[in-house]
Amino acid sequence: MKILGDIVSPYVRVCLVTGYEVGLGDRLDLVETDVRIATANEDLGKLSPIAQIPVLVTDDGQVLHDSRVIVDYICQASGNRALMPGEGQARFRVLTLQAIGQGIADASVSYRNEIAQRPKALHWPAWLDRLQLRVETALDALERNWADELAETTVGSITVAVVLSYLDYRFGHWAWRDQRPALSAFHARFAMRPSMEKTALPTP
Amino acid sequence: MKILGDIVSPYVRVCLVTGYEVGLGDRLDLVETDVRIATANEDLGKLSPIAQIPVLVTDDGQVLHDSRVIVDYICQASGNRALMPGEGQARFRVLTLQAIGQGIADASVSYRNEIAQRPKALHWPAWLDRLQLRVETALDALERNWADELAETTVGSITVAVVLSYLDYRFGHWAWRDQRPALSAFHARFAMRPSMEKTALPTP
Repeated sequence: MKILGDIVSPYVRVCLVTGYEVGLGDRLDLVETDVRIATANEDLGKLSPIAQIPVLVTDDGQVLHDSRVIVDYICQASGNRALMPGEGQARFRVLTLQAIGQGIADASVSYRNEIAQRPKALHWPAWLDRLQLRVETALDALERNWADELAETTVGSITVAVVLSYLDYRFGHWAWRDQRPALSAFHARFAMRPSMEKTALPTP
Repeated sequence: MKILGDIVSPYVRVCLVTGYEVGLGDRLDLVETDVRIATANEDLGKLSPIAQIPVLVTDDGQVLHDSRVIVDYICQASGNRALMPGEGQARFRVLTLQAIGQGIADASVSYRNEIAQRPKALHWPAWLDRLQLRVETALDALERNWADELAETTVGSITVAVVLSYLDYRFGHWAWRDQRPALSAFHARFAMRPSMEKTALPTP
């Protein structure tokens, strides 16, 4: 299988970590694909009209996206049912945790795109403040309300671990660990998993 | 069940349409909730740290988000397996179609937020052009490659129908029907479903 993307993207890395967790990591061939928010990428556009990373091309030529669809596919292709419970309350706790992790990714990637790609004269401080507040509020909720779910290895805890590493990579000065000992301990433990070590980010 | 949101949001309406399709529409009580991208909404924030609409509160008090999680929940709660196939190639075609619909929503809602909420002096025309191109390219792909999947009522075709109506509401001047007869016919047919009529948008 080929996966188009850049490992710094939390949307891409979460697919690779899931792959390693279910034993398919070595079958996922990462094809480095660069994206800029204001420029079309033709190679990517040929596979996905949305032209965002990641895109998965399966061995039989199916083209899947976006990251949540790919994560679901990887779990099913492996026969692993533990990372994403099939039904009941457990399923929707895990999926909501995954959505919180993705919400942190959406807010922090939007922040990054604004400050790294949009011309400086066009930045909107009120919106950047709102994005950072969204991240901080979500981190506080994870610290307080999600300890049981974070103790399990699921698509929810994978997404949270990956986005915390992304915050370290792009927003180290936000110091997310301050006042959040439970979340810090979760991340320190999760980061030692082989799935995380094999997909480690480059040094910023 | 309570669903917090605004029916103009395609993320909210897709949940309500799904509810009507599976026979739970009358049990979904829409609580009108306003959101501005640069302002925190405290009521919403109490339920979801990401503070985006929609949020679902189930009858037994579970709090679920985001829209894809809610759609999945509504399908499971109803016992309906037709809208979202459980496995195999059919599942991932439907989920990828859903992701294309969501990608169109993400791009067009971002466009709308930029022009309606961000101060005019801070607009970035290159990015707006890229967002519109993303929408147009995705619509072209739907016209060409997804006729079979759009002929079925699934979470994929629901998402596409809802986002096309959103384009009519916010971006009528984009004239998405031009050069897209198959997609136009799909939408004309789908818009007559009771699930769409019961969730009709106000006049722009």
